[in-house]
Amino acid sequence: MTNNLNFKIINTDGRARNGLLHLNHGTLKTPTFMPVGTGGCVKAMLKRDLEEIGAHIILGNTFHLWMRPGIDIINHHEGLHNFIKWQKPILTDSGGFQVFSLKELCKITEEGVRFSSPINGSKLFLTPEKSIQIQSILNSDITMIFDECTPYQIGSHIINREEARSSMHLSLRWAKRSLDEFKRQENKNSMFGIVQGGIYEDLREESINGLLDIGFNGYAIGGLSVGEPKEYLHKILEFVSPKIPDNFPKYLMGVGTPEDIVNAVSNGIDMFDCVMPTRNARNGWLFTRYGNIKIKNSRYKNDTNGLDPTCACYTCRNFTRSYLHHLQITKEINSSILNTIHNLHFYLNMMKEIRESINEKKFDIWKNNFLEDRSSNSY
Amino acid sequence: MTNNLNFKIINTDGRARNGLLHLNHGTLKTPTFMPVGTGGCVKAMLKRDLEEIGAHIILGNTFHLWMRPGIDIINHHEGLHNFIKWQKPILTDSGGFQVFSLKELCKITEEGVRFSSPINGSKLFLTPEKSIQIQSILNSDITMIFDECTPYQIGSHIINREEARSSMHLSLRWAKRSLDEFKRQENKNSMFGIVQGGIYEDLREESINGLLDIGFNGYAIGGLSVGEPKEYLHKILEFVSPKIPDNFPKYLMGVGTPEDIVNAVSNGIDMFDCVMPTRNARNGWLFTRYGNIKIKNSRYKNDTNGLDPTCACYTCRNFTRSYLHHLQITKEINSSILNTIHNLHFYLNMMKEIRESINEKKFDIWKNNFLEDRSSNSY
Repeated sequence: MTNNLNFKIINTDGRARNGLLHLNHGTLKTPTFMPVGTGGCVKAMLKRDLEEIGAHIILGNTFHLWMRPGIDIINHHEGLHNFIKWQKPILTDSGGFQVFSLKELCKITEEGVRFSSPINGSKLFLTPEKSIQIQSILNSDITMIFDECTPYQIGSHIINREEARSSMHLSLRWAKRSLDEFKRQENKNSMFGIVQGGIYEDLREESINGLLDIGFNGYAIGGLSVGEPKEYLHKILEFVSPKIPDNFPKYLMGVGTPEDIVNAVSNGIDMFDCVMPTRNARNGWLFTRYGNIKIKNSRYKNDTNGLDPTCACYTCRNFTRSYLHHLQITKEINSSILNTIHNLHFYLNMMKEIRESINEKKFDIWKNNFLEDRSSNSY
Repeated sequence: MTNNLNFKIINTDGRARNGLLHLNHGTLKTPTFMPVGTGGCVKAMLKRDLEEIGAHIILGNTFHLWMRPGIDIINHHEGLHNFIKWQKPILTDSGGFQVFSLKELCKITEEGVRFSSPINGSKLFLTPEKSIQIQSILNSDITMIFDECTPYQIGSHIINREEARSSMHLSLRWAKRSLDEFKRQENKNSMFGIVQGGIYEDLREESINGLLDIGFNGYAIGGLSVGEPKEYLHKILEFVSPKIPDNFPKYLMGVGTPEDIVNAVSNGIDMFDCVMPTRNARNGWLFTRYGNIKIKNSRYKNDTNGLDPTCACYTCRNFTRSYLHHLQITKEINSSILNTIHNLHFYLNMMKEIRESINEKKFDIWKNNFLEDRSSNSY
């Protein structure tokens, strides 16, 4: 496989590790968090805002971009980086997760998934080959394989071992087709496999071994935070992560709260993405070192303190809780902007502190202090 | 009257003039345009965005701020500047215009206006004294008198001379009470009178003379762009502006299009405000030197040109029309941000070019070129 992926572990502290992930548009320091830029932008954030808070990679959603503006438009701009004017790394998902979430599904066959466009109703067909062709046009630094994300349950039915096995096997066959197409496209970026298998450890292990046989540049853990009880997240994570060889980057998809991320770093995870900091910001739910703040709460109406006096972001440097409360109550766009700046700064600053504490071999001390401060809810 | 208002005309070209208006939070170069920051922010613009495009004064709406967050909150922050963290000049209106626009009016008496709060239905009473008390707490650099903005028509009834006269006389009595209260508050900022009288020149003249007898720091022309046929705007403006002594700043309220502003500068107007650049931005209507662009139009779907290649704003420096079209179609907050940056930059850059052309005694040449370029609609 020809590509320039290069992952180097530069430091470890227990199973937590600091790494450097070299990609075509730049090098990431890991552990890292990737803000979600669904349809060609991180909602309410301009490029300069992202740069100011230290974002080094963002995530794009293949399905959204395929629907709008459409791949022809992005091709005409010679890729997603030029279209959105972000010249640092981009990771894209395969589009599968969104297609499987559509209400008007969607017939799944060995070949791929048929569905109706939620934009104009036209009949569409997404296959591993199609997903990789689209991601090749996007020119994503990291392409994700097309797979079926096995849900925890459908309605009241909890997916059983046989169903999870069958789904995971399909995903393995699609993983192979994804890589074959990636090579056919002569894509010079990197491709990650995705471990599936639901809540069943033996299936997770079979998935890892199958993916390692095919051979990818990194490995993601999928199918977690998809509605399962919280204990499964920890259990599966602790089982799966050590089984992925340590010389590969490990990416926990779609997770999660600050606490989830800190715990996953303890388990050797290097990469994260989640809509939580951005989506919650727009709803007025703010993350701080000393617990979460619901800024709409009337207790902040006349509170002239800064949002978080220990935070160095633009929002906290400038505005009172009272002002942020007012903007949220009056539904100003400025509320979304200022809240998003703060929440993403919180997440990225947390990752920076994680990396520093690993460098100093003090990750466990940092982690205990952080979790204690967070649970104090003293704001 | 004790205040530090100081207006100096530094250059003229015909009746257009360049001035310096010294206010407590800074000095304005006139002619100037004031972005509207209704409820404590210019929608979709952070302070740094406003500074980058060269905004030196913004407008706040007394009515909106009175309703939310309420005057106690702003008093607790020691004024509007500290609440919104904008330390340059602020002009506030009197709140009257919004009260008179309420559907559930509102009984007008000699003493003031009774109405129900649109927020919680509580009974409220706005008088000249109350408006000035509120504006004193806001600590606006320029306080506007409380008056009745005479409309052009109510339903199908065009306001006749007697009605306009009666309304204007009430406004004059309220103007005197406004100034008396301003002095009682020992307000050290500036206060502007507002010329009313509808479409009737003799009433406009009587209003000017009445206001001059009372004595203000500047004079605004109100009751234009309130639904009257466009020719009245020019006619009344040409009549009123020369009757205001030239050593006072002249402010045309709520006007208008780029063409309206350029024409008003020809008539000696120094100050403008209008929601058009900000509101239209959020609807995807963009002002450029070569005509207006409706960015939703499908002709821009695959247009990889910058929005306006002659524009130096952040939006035009970075993004294609195709990308801006995409953000508008997908209703991203980022669309409002980028469009607003562009439109306000366009207005403020226009004002800068106006000032430069007056300095060079070439305002008419500049104006003719500008109007010709605008009407070319070549984008």
